[in-house]
Amino acid sequence: MATVIGQAALPAARATRGGLHRSVVERVAMDILGGLYPPGETLPSEVELGARLGVGRSSIREAMRVLADKGIVRVNTRTGARVNDRRLWRRLDPDVVRWTLAAGPDAEFLGHLIEARRIIEPEAAALAARRATGADLAAIDAALSAMQAALGVSPADCVEADLAFHRAVLAASGNPVLEEFEVVIEAALRAAFTLSHAQSQSYELALERHAGVRDAIRMKDPAGAHAAMVALLAVAARDLRLP
Amino acid sequence: MATVIGQAALPAARATRGGLHRSVVERVAMDILGGLYPPGETLPSEVELGARLGVGRSSIREAMRVLADKGIVRVNTRTGARVNDRRLWRRLDPDVVRWTLAAGPDAEFLGHLIEARRIIEPEAAALAARRATGADLAAIDAALSAMQAALGVSPADCVEADLAFHRAVLAASGNPVLEEFEVVIEAALRAAFTLSHAQSQSYELALERHAGVRDAIRMKDPAGAHAAMVALLAVAARDLRLP
Repeated sequence: MATVIGQAALPAARATRGGLHRSVVERVAMDILGGLYPPGETLPSEVELGARLGVGRSSIREAMRVLADKGIVRVNTRTGARVNDRRLWRRLDPDVVRWTLAAGPDAEFLGHLIEARRIIEPEAAALAARRATGADLAAIDAALSAMQAALGVSPADCVEADLAFHRAVLAASGNPVLEEFEVVIEAALRAAFTLSHAQSQSYELALERHAGVRDAIRMKDPAGAHAAMVALLAVAARDLRLP
Repeated sequence: MATVIGQAALPAARATRGGLHRSVVERVAMDILGGLYPPGETLPSEVELGARLGVGRSSIREAMRVLADKGIVRVNTRTGARVNDRRLWRRLDPDVVRWTLAAGPDAEFLGHLIEARRIIEPEAAALAARRATGADLAAIDAALSAMQAALGVSPADCVEADLAFHRAVLAASGNPVLEEFEVVIEAALRAAFTLSHAQSQSYELALERHAGVRDAIRMKDPAGAHAAMVALLAVAARDLRLP
């Protein structure tokens, strides 16, 4: 049940990489993350898995290749594929994040995501205040307008616009390494959306805080942008009843 | 030339995920990152690529699957595989980072890596001062001892021990999301090693600074650990003549 809700709420990230193959990877991945094949367990043979999922051996082999690349399984030509210890998983791979949430977002993981956001995003906002171009500011403005337009209309659109806002701030930091951090923000926002609807209660406050970040970046005020982002994330943490 | 040096200096990250297949992925990836197939370009057909690399079509297809998963190419069953715009690449994927460096580390990318380190690592050190377990402290100590032992003996061992130190601090933060950041640290350290040998000059100073981080974490002094890590990373940035 939790899986179904989670999956429905989690559209494929960067869907352009999808395809028929994607569903085989996802189905095996969800079996692993759902606990059917825990870490240390050897997976059924390619033939067995193929029969169960109704696809050919080559599809299973390609899926194993992708899962191995993400550190989730280790393929041995003699003994077959085995599920790796979670420490070896590429936990910030966008698919791995998405599957983790779909398998049932847990409060501890969410706490770690928020903690990481509170470390990185205020600094990114300060950099954005120094470096944002006109196009960056326009993207931040557009996302804020979309948030305002979605208020009270569509909770799903609110999440997308919220994500677009934070993505635009990261992009405005001018540092592509920080930009890659969007996967953490996306995971945190989608998990929060799945876990609670508390955010709708303080959505107007959140909007105000987002506008504060935008204003400080526009005024080229790094310290102000930093403080505004800290204040914004405090609202996000409070909504989730995190310390 | 730069490619050859870079590749020699960059052993496969998490080599357990390797295999025969790995080399096909890497060869196509290096052709893309080396500029033979720039973004927007359509790759040769599976048959042509297979002939050139001396492997079968299924190997090429698996390689394309992995590259598509990393956002580097987009596969279209009718028109073939096309190289994506760099913005779509998963730039923090450990392989993508490694290939980027192997294709010729550039000072701008290195500057971005260091900037990200200066944002995340001091905070991770402060968290480590709060949360480090006995095992975490032992791992930090072991890495520091290895750095001392490698001094003046093996520059390559110095880099490995240095990386182990920073990895141990991240792990001691108790936040698995921050732990995934090790790929950025690894990229920064290996790029620095490839770009310059300046670090050997200030290695003793660097050792002292590492010991400072260790001591503050051991004393459960978050502010001290934060400051010690800031000081350590200032040495790293100076070695690279970054501001």
